[in-house]
Amino acid sequence: MKTFKIERPNAAMQTPLRFKIDNLTKPKGSLGTLEELALQVGLIQQTLSPSLKCPQNIIFCADHGIEAEGVSVSPREVTWQQTIHFTQGNGGVNFLCRQHGFQLKVVDAGVDYDLPTDRGIIDKKIRKGTRNFLYEAAMTEDEMNRCVEYGAEIVHQCHNEGSNVLSFGEMGIGNTSASSLWMTCFTGIPLLQCVGAGSGLNNDGIRHKYGVLKRALDNYAGDGSTIDIIRYFGGYEMVMAIGAMLQAAELGIIILVDGFIMTNCILAASKLYPEVLDYAVFGHCGDESGHRLVLNALQAKPILSLGLRLGEGTGAICAYPILDSAVRMINEMDSFVGASVTKYF
Amino acid sequence: MKTFKIERPNAAMQTPLRFKIDNLTKPKGSLGTLEELALQVGLIQQTLSPSLKCPQNIIFCADHGIEAEGVSVSPREVTWQQTIHFTQGNGGVNFLCRQHGFQLKVVDAGVDYDLPTDRGIIDKKIRKGTRNFLYEAAMTEDEMNRCVEYGAEIVHQCHNEGSNVLSFGEMGIGNTSASSLWMTCFTGIPLLQCVGAGSGLNNDGIRHKYGVLKRALDNYAGDGSTIDIIRYFGGYEMVMAIGAMLQAAELGIIILVDGFIMTNCILAASKLYPEVLDYAVFGHCGDESGHRLVLNALQAKPILSLGLRLGEGTGAICAYPILDSAVRMINEMDSFVGASVTKYF
Repeated sequence: MKTFKIERPNAAMQTPLRFKIDNLTKPKGSLGTLEELALQVGLIQQTLSPSLKCPQNIIFCADHGIEAEGVSVSPREVTWQQTIHFTQGNGGVNFLCRQHGFQLKVVDAGVDYDLPTDRGIIDKKIRKGTRNFLYEAAMTEDEMNRCVEYGAEIVHQCHNEGSNVLSFGEMGIGNTSASSLWMTCFTGIPLLQCVGAGSGLNNDGIRHKYGVLKRALDNYAGDGSTIDIIRYFGGYEMVMAIGAMLQAAELGIIILVDGFIMTNCILAASKLYPEVLDYAVFGHCGDESGHRLVLNALQAKPILSLGLRLGEGTGAICAYPILDSAVRMINEMDSFVGASVTKYF
Repeated sequence: MKTFKIERPNAAMQTPLRFKIDNLTKPKGSLGTLEELALQVGLIQQTLSPSLKCPQNIIFCADHGIEAEGVSVSPREVTWQQTIHFTQGNGGVNFLCRQHGFQLKVVDAGVDYDLPTDRGIIDKKIRKGTRNFLYEAAMTEDEMNRCVEYGAEIVHQCHNEGSNVLSFGEMGIGNTSASSLWMTCFTGIPLLQCVGAGSGLNNDGIRHKYGVLKRALDNYAGDGSTIDIIRYFGGYEMVMAIGAMLQAAELGIIILVDGFIMTNCILAASKLYPEVLDYAVFGHCGDESGHRLVLNALQAKPILSLGLRLGEGTGAICAYPILDSAVRMINEMDSFVGASVTKYF
């Protein structure tokens, strides 16, 4: 697999950043999360005057072999339909992109459909869906490696376009199943607590989904290494997201993490390169059962908790204005000295 | 006191609004809080295509007699200094107003200082600070009535300027003390749980503050009516906010509720006119001890929880982009029929 050179931001910057933030005209700590985010972005960018440039949302789309086992309430065709729909400007993610000035990239990582070529969809199709991991590995090693490379390549392109903040989303019927297996394998949290309703299963459906995933886990006879688990249960869109996140971290780009699936992708990425987490801003804690647990396992404090469970990057983009507020705070607020206001304490 | 004619939004609109929201291209309910907000705004505006126009943030500023008892870590002079500072564009609230396109109105409701007249500060000064409610009523009945009228008058002006969404904030050293007393009187929650750190008291400071407020409560010999409690413990900026909120509701304007103090203002307002709550969007649950409790008492679900405790309207304005997202969702997203996407379930 492609290797990355990810460095932790130099911690020496922490002291001057903290000093600047603490001397803005407000009681110390009174802007809460905004202060923490300003510190993180300042560290990533190694500056007292950070900035957010050309934000983009990248949606990786692919199908999953496990879908054949009836683990989702949504039919497989929704993957390709939504992939096209994203390019038409009227989906859930689109109005958020417009609102916050995000460019949108839609990537075919492995959709089970011959997608139109005139919609600007980035064609990185590995195969028309992964294999069914109930019986065999979802993908080959070569396929996994190509996913990582393609994800990295797309982030390089964003970097060349001037982006220093990226959010990642996904579309793929069956991908909460794949995510639940990564989660249980990488955190040790029992599978039962990692399985949820996805796009809308009822209790019977969740029980069935759990049964299928339990059997898949029992059938798994790989070597238990991080890479093998990624390959065996992963989706093409998910592994491409891993490559994208790792490349983003290498380039010092802020990673806006979306919902349950993307959180499990950065979890997997962090098993390969723990430093990637320094670049991660967790946008949202969603309603999918297990999301809070995996966030806790990562010691992540998501910005929002709005009960979203749509994916596509929606939770990450909704959180962007808060990140923007943090950057504006550190750049635009007066210090006590400049403002002639008595320091509050 | 001035009376208001506040009507509950016509609930007949609920069915068509819910139908429209449920048929957008997403699993039902998967946009969580955005769906709830779209419903509320659609109800307030009685339309399937709501809009947000000319948002404004109004900061009411005033001093409190109780400040003399050492209930705040911040000196009294911070009130006038910050009141001026807001007009210079570099305070905490200013960068948020710029970010989200809010106009800012700064109102002198009773600041203990001769403020400059060339800064655009709206002069509604009742008196240079309230009286000390440890010994006597904070304000006279006439003063209270004028506060309500002035607050209403300013909202009328915003309405004439085209605003249909307003957030309210405050500046006033000592106003968490006044708020805690309103909270205990109007919710029945024991005073101890209503008292917190304000702008940054330590534990000793909080104990002292509690002792002072306990004595004030013991000394109170009024008739226990809503109006008497508002008058006895209130601040001019807080009562002006009540008048503003009630006028906003009468005019069908969305009220963005900020932190601990503004939440207690709408609590007090709702004791006079319960219908005001239909127009309230709660922006933020802050760190001030008691804020979560008063929100629960109002059955309010705040949009954000970012650990802010600055006031000025900052929590409300930070939540504005989420409200905006909700309005864009219902206006800009395709329905399943229009989009040719298989309905998820």
